Amino acid sequence: MAEHNATLETTLKLLLDEKKYSTIKDVLITMNPANIAGVFQELEPEKTPLLFRLLPKELAAETFVEMETDLQELLIKGFSDSELREVVEELYVDDAADLVEEMPANVVKRILAQADPQMRKEINEILRYPENSAGSIMTTEYVSLRPQMTIDEAIKRIRRTGIDKETIYTCYVTEGRKLLGFVTVKDLLMTNDDDKTIEEIMDKNVISVSTLEDQESVAQMLSKYNFLALPVVDTDERMVGIITFDDAMDVMEDEATEDIELMAGMIPSEKTYLKSNVFDLFKQRIPWLLLLMISATFTGMILNGFEDALKVQVVLTSFIPMLMDTGGNSGSQSSVTIIRSLSLGEIEFFDLPKIIWKEIRTAALCGIALSAACFAKLMLIDRLLLKNSKVTIAVALVVCCAMALTVLVAKIIGCSLPMVAKKLGFDPAVMASPFITTIVDAVSLLVYFLIATAILF
Amino acid sequence: MAEHNATLETTLKLLLDEKKYSTIKDVLITMNPANIAGVFQELEPEKTPLLFRLLPKELAAETFVEMETDLQELLIKGFSDSELREVVEELYVDDAADLVEEMPANVVKRILAQADPQMRKEINEILRYPENSAGSIMTTEYVSLRPQMTIDEAIKRIRRTGIDKETIYTCYVTEGRKLLGFVTVKDLLMTNDDDKTIEEIMDKNVISVSTLEDQESVAQMLSKYNFLALPVVDTDERMVGIITFDDAMDVMEDEATEDIELMAGMIPSEKTYLKSNVFDLFKQRIPWLLLLMISATFTGMILNGFEDALKVQVVLTSFIPMLMDTGGNSGSQSSVTIIRSLSLGEIEFFDLPKIIWKEIRTAALCGIALSAACFAKLMLIDRLLLKNSKVTIAVALVVCCAMALTVLVAKIIGCSLPMVAKKLGFDPAVMASPFITTIVDAVSLLVYFLIATAILF
Repeated sequence: MAEHNATLETTLKLLLDEKKYSTIKDVLITMNPANIAGVFQELEPEKTPLLFRLLPKELAAETFVEMETDLQELLIKGFSDSELREVVEELYVDDAADLVEEMPANVVKRILAQADPQMRKEINEILRYPENSAGSIMTTEYVSLRPQMTIDEAIKRIRRTGIDKETIYTCYVTEGRKLLGFVTVKDLLMTNDDDKTIEEIMDKNVISVSTLEDQESVAQMLSKYNFLALPVVDTDERMVGIITFDDAMDVMEDEATEDIELMAGMIPSEKTYLKSNVFDLFKQRIPWLLLLMISATFTGMILNGFEDALKVQVVLTSFIPMLMDTGGNSGSQSSVTIIRSLSLGEIEFFDLPKIIWKEIRTAALCGIALSAACFAKLMLIDRLLLKNSKVTIAVALVVCCAMALTVLVAKIIGCSLPMVAKKLGFDPAVMASPFITTIVDAVSLLVYFLIATAILF
Repeated sequence: MAEHNATLETTLKLLLDEKKYSTIKDVLITMNPANIAGVFQELEPEKTPLLFRLLPKELAAETFVEMETDLQELLIKGFSDSELREVVEELYVDDAADLVEEMPANVVKRILAQADPQMRKEINEILRYPENSAGSIMTTEYVSLRPQMTIDEAIKRIRRTGIDKETIYTCYVTEGRKLLGFVTVKDLLMTNDDDKTIEEIMDKNVISVSTLEDQESVAQMLSKYNFLALPVVDTDERMVGIITFDDAMDVMEDEATEDIELMAGMIPSEKTYLKSNVFDLFKQRIPWLLLLMISATFTGMILNGFEDALKVQVVLTSFIPMLMDTGGNSGSQSSVTIIRSLSLGEIEFFDLPKIIWKEIRTAALCGIALSAACFAKLMLIDRLLLKNSKVTIAVALVVCCAMALTVLVAKIIGCSLPMVAKKLGFDPAVMASPFITTIVDAVSLLVYFLIATAILF
């Protein structure tokens, strides 16, 4: 796709230089809003208002939604009030709310001034819901039907009011705003008797979410049930909006990125990598690096405590990286598996005993295999090949025992910490590799030197 | 959701014990296929065939699709040929192809024997495409329209043939199987003149994918364009199927899980955690653990090489874990950011110089901040508070210089390796934390001891 845009850009740049605006317009209107926004993003920002004005009204609004925040801001600042009104009028309420959330205060004032009173009210309603809640990502524009309507009347209503709705394919049956059921346009078209009422054909088994539900679980539900949209109800069970599959897809992508960033010890950011400047990246990365560096004081203290042992058997030092890395890797394998399963809703807190028992058995298998391989390596490579006479059988035994125990401890900590974190209301992804590595490091060094002291001295 | 299922299960178990089958049926038919499958999964497997036979034909087939493979296999083995035919007839072709792919050979034979010749042909066609390609996940059941049809004729065609199609909402306009454009049911309903032809209202700017396109990029495209479905064309540009948004959601989820597993040094698996037995987990985890343990031989060799320095200045040992962990964390921050951006298609190989330059500047900021904090910590905590007189200013300088350099090297390696891997045709996620940690460990130790030798001896 990127390559496709790249050649188009070059063409458009040439056409722009030659001021061939009607050709540019002809090219742009063959394109998809997401692609037009992509091309605009690559051109010089000062050309954007000019190009944007070439687009027909509806395409302009659709393209506007797909643009990055910085370009949207630039455009709005250049808009006359009537131009701004035209764009705002074409936006769906949830997109308008997103826009208002991301713009600076003076721009927001202008946007709200141009929205009609009904839309202004709806934008404000959406903005009142907490961040990442179902309410904050829903749209209030959906098709509602009355239970007494006939199929024919329902289709007429859809044809009359559907043009402004984000999806017309799932319609919600309400009475006094209470959600009774849903019908799909497929149901309406496939029923051969146009005089049947909506009540007779609607599906009463309607799954809804509350406005305060977490957006991630809403996305999971849409994906699980393969629905086009999920209705959102308030605390009095009155229908207030819908969340559509395309919003759910964005949420799934964002939440996976957020988990991955947290797992790697970063503060999640909504900016893409290329959009982030060096200082953004620094702010994302330095907190955990500092915290983890300081917490390494404990490993340092443990090593200081065993200074005398290290002086006598310097060879012990050379296995520290191997032990620490194996422990860290074992722990992060478990923690990452558990974090992902928690995200996907595959496991619950009451599964913890079952999970710990499974991890203990897995750790036993991994520990035995690793120790055996390690013993073979120490004897064959270090002792025979590299002729390191300090690697005695006793030393090898110490290393292998420490390794097996480290793997066991790492896997138990790795699987429990994320689950406990979730139970306590923290994001389990924070408990991933870097955090667990630091704990496992300290434990593995302690185990190593205790075993060494017992066997070698 | 899980809690909801939990109470339902208890009720159903009680009803089952009391053999109240008609009540069970009444309960089940109020539920969604995904939920019924979830409940079945939790009950004793031998009860499933009995419960399954209570479901009406269509709901039974929909529930069947949502079940885990093991339960599907158990059911099929218990089915009579006519029961099997009823289920297979109700399946969409892509679901049937999935089923055939996952079942053992003797079960596959029975399934194909019950499918009608047309479906058998279509299943075989889908199975011929490589794993993870667009062709392998598409369905061949879509609504196709002719360009000369009027809107009225088109709606009639949809009503007549739509019942068996996975989505009716986007219809594809074809002539001699060549894809000319698409119309949505919304377009059809919103156009007020029923005598207009499809050709007049269709959108000719149709975005399609080839059968061999990677499923991940198809999912990205569906998410980018907010389409309900994308048409799939063969090498002769003839339309062969569609991929719907719900399949794209599953792909996005699976691909994110696969990336996360690879990043944590595991062989990806399609089984969920609770479904995996201990030996599955062992096989997933041991290869990388073994490889990384063996590769730690290099760090051991470096430490052995500087044995004499370590004997004189044992205090140097106590900073090894801090240096290694900080290096590892810095490297994995960069690699994980880059891997995710590559997955989302945000960066390309030609961005590499720009990325390295950004990482170098970020590393400089992080390195300075970390070194300063580390110096302060060494002076205040180790020297003043813990009264460790061996932590001289010279030692502190060695540690801080080594730390800054390690961060720099870690970030450069961390951002370049995944991009180079992708360029060479490997999955960049393999180049994440564990792999980079091992390399960065070796580099950081080398840097540390070289600086130590230069300053302290």
